[in-house]
Amino acid sequence: MTEIPKFRPKKTEHFSRRPAPGRRIRGRIWMERDGELYMGWGRAMLLERIDEYGSIAAAARSMKLGYRNAWLWVEAANRLAPSPLVEKVTGGPGGGRTRLTDEGREVVERYRQLRAKFERFLTRVD
Amino acid sequence: MTEIPKFRPKKTEHFSRRPAPGRRIRGRIWMERDGELYMGWGRAMLLERIDEYGSIAAAARSMKLGYRNAWLWVEAANRLAPSPLVEKVTGGPGGGRTRLTDEGREVVERYRQLRAKFERFLTRVD
Repeated sequence: MTEIPKFRPKKTEHFSRRPAPGRRIRGRIWMERDGELYMGWGRAMLLERIDEYGSIAAAARSMKLGYRNAWLWVEAANRLAPSPLVEKVTGGPGGGRTRLTDEGREVVERYRQLRAKFERFLTRVD
Repeated sequence: MTEIPKFRPKKTEHFSRRPAPGRRIRGRIWMERDGELYMGWGRAMLLERIDEYGSIAAAARSMKLGYRNAWLWVEAANRLAPSPLVEKVTGGPGGGRTRLTDEGREVVERYRQLRAKFERFLTRVD
């Protein structure tokens, strides 16, 4: 009677590249202008939330970030950008709201794409 | 008389990818084991200098790093590694020296290669 060969999963390139358990490569990435932080993880999140909540104060609260810090981040990003990223729209039912400009939306999207590429890089690299 | 055409450098992909002046993408990268920092910029530099100077104290001094911190970094890396990265060799003309093991040399080299790949990624990405 012939012995049934045991199932041996083939070691593909994919498997051999999977890091050993507990091993991980991590990193951070950010955009600078004129040597200053322009857009990173925290600022991108703050801008998204300003647009969502309609106010810097509410966005800062949702991130447990002090209002003064949030305001300084927005001010620095606005100053470094070619045109403001955040604008205040007065009037309307709620008495005005703060929102992202087109430039603000674009830079948040560019940062998101940069992060996505970086995450792909981290999974590829040994 | 025919006018001599002005020299117009061709815009190659390389040039069009060059970021605008003052714009830069930066980042950090490190290796973790079991959720803890294993090898990063500072630790790799410390290990290289331990091997160069033959002592943790001299290596720490050269980096303006406190001896206690340097010792803790070495201790943490040794603990996370499959085998120690740094060893003390007793005896000999200078009364013994601290040096990298083969495992230590290998991890420093792996980190150097990781950084080189990351630097290439940063220059390629928009």
